[in-house]
Amino acid sequence: MLHLYIGNKNYSSWSMRPWVLLRQAGIAFDELRVRFDSFEAGSEFKRTVGAVSPTGKVPVLVDGGLVVWDTLAIAEYLAETHPDKQLWPADPRARARARSICAEMHSGFTALRSHCPMNIEANLADTGALIWRDQAAVRADVQRLVDMWSELLQEHGGPMLFGEFTIADAYFAPVCMRLHSYALPLPPHITDYVQRVRALPGVRAWIDEALAEQDFRAFEEPYRLGR
Amino acid sequence: MLHLYIGNKNYSSWSMRPWVLLRQAGIAFDELRVRFDSFEAGSEFKRTVGAVSPTGKVPVLVDGGLVVWDTLAIAEYLAETHPDKQLWPADPRARARARSICAEMHSGFTALRSHCPMNIEANLADTGALIWRDQAAVRADVQRLVDMWSELLQEHGGPMLFGEFTIADAYFAPVCMRLHSYALPLPPHITDYVQRVRALPGVRAWIDEALAEQDFRAFEEPYRLGR
Ligand SMILES: N[C@@H](CCC(=O)N[C@@H](CS)C(=O)NCC(=O)O)C(=O)O
Ligand SMILES: N[C@@H](CCC(=O)N[C@@H](CS)C(=O)NCC(=O)O)C(=O)O
Repeated sequence: MLHLYIGNKNYSSWSMRPWVLLRQAGIAFDELRVRFDSFEAGSEFKRTVGAVSPTGKVPVLVDGGLVVWDTLAIAEYLAETHPDKQLWPADPRARARARSICAEMHSGFTALRSHCPMNIEANLADTGALIWRDQAAVRADVQRLVDMWSELLQEHGGPMLFGEFTIADAYFAPVCMRLHSYALPLPPHITDYVQRVRALPGVRAWIDEALAEQDFRAFEEPYRLGR
Repeated sequence: MLHLYIGNKNYSSWSMRPWVLLRQAGIAFDELRVRFDSFEAGSEFKRTVGAVSPTGKVPVLVDGGLVVWDTLAIAEYLAETHPDKQLWPADPRARARARSICAEMHSGFTALRSHCPMNIEANLADTGALIWRDQAAVRADVQRLVDMWSELLQEHGGPMLFGEFTIADAYFAPVCMRLHSYALPLPPHITDYVQRVRALPGVRAWIDEALAEQDFRAFEEPYRLGR
């Protein structure tokens, strides 16, 4: 049985990717939720996650005696061990592009990630409007998403980026959460893609559990008082 | 024929990874060097790289009509298209770990990367001593490298992280450049690994061409005047 260590569902954007991937692909796994705390050395979070992974971060996948950490390595491991699930696009050229956009996400989009941290339960439309007005780098990140998704949706005909659901959609699922919570302005065909991702059963399950969680952490709430 | 767009050899740590990988594996390719400049929209660099890749960053691999960008996606593409070269470790468990440490590098080690930018030609030992004294986050990044490499070198018996040369060594080659230029304190067995990486023919070739380049860019020289 696969074991996946994750953080709070409301906040942990990295945890969301492999969880949605596993769930959406119908691969059985056990979830171990480690509550976000200060992340200081010796904290409960660091002791729990540090006991399994050398980086002390979530997500971590444990398969028997094997520990796989870091989202992209987990995705590759699942693709390799479940070839029948076609987690990457089957066509080699499409697969190379899917890997390019996932690697780009893995180290990029820093403005969007830092100004608009994932917070599924929150409605942050007003905050989003201010961010949109003031942060050119956020606008540039969103423009890059719009260009990337438009091209792929047109080329593959949708509904997902490469036709059927792949790792690429799981990789951008937390981005869809942010675009929605902060109500950032998008062309209609991109809003439609965001809505289709939100409606995937694997994503819907994560959202529902995030909403049920009700475990608010002040340091993850830069834009709200008193939750 | 494969075409690889790269930046200045003295400075471009991301470019170094796929170049060393191709060279060390003996895969033929054409190099297209795009000189670093302001990186502003409309600059020569952005016009040249932006004409082939949507991110406008190097490295970019072009294979016929296919454009692959972002270092990790390029590495996966080369591994997939050259199975005979065993660019990833052959053992599935070792491969999962190699991918974990590469993905960790891809998005991590931010303190080391920002305080100690790659500058192959420079001797920055004095600067390195100050950084070492003042920057706990750099010390933590180096400690993580020491732990990671020690474990892998012991488990696989060296000389490289997974025995023979793999993508993982190419991924950490620019890190070896930094550790050397800034003369950061390391245990002897780790210094030995750094020296072994520096002595790989593919790495040696990159270093020699970096030294021959003599194309100094002020914004890449936070620690030197007048080069
Ligand atoms: N590159 C890592 C990033 C993981 C990451 O930053 N996870 C956060 C939660 S979303 C974490 O564990 N933070 C704890 C910490 O920074 O100490 C991955 O893709 O797995
Ligand atoms: N995640 C990217 C990073 C690439 C990157 O940042 N490249 C730098 C040179 S080392 C660059 O092209 N910078 C130009 C810019 O930032 O505009 C990759 O792995 O390829």
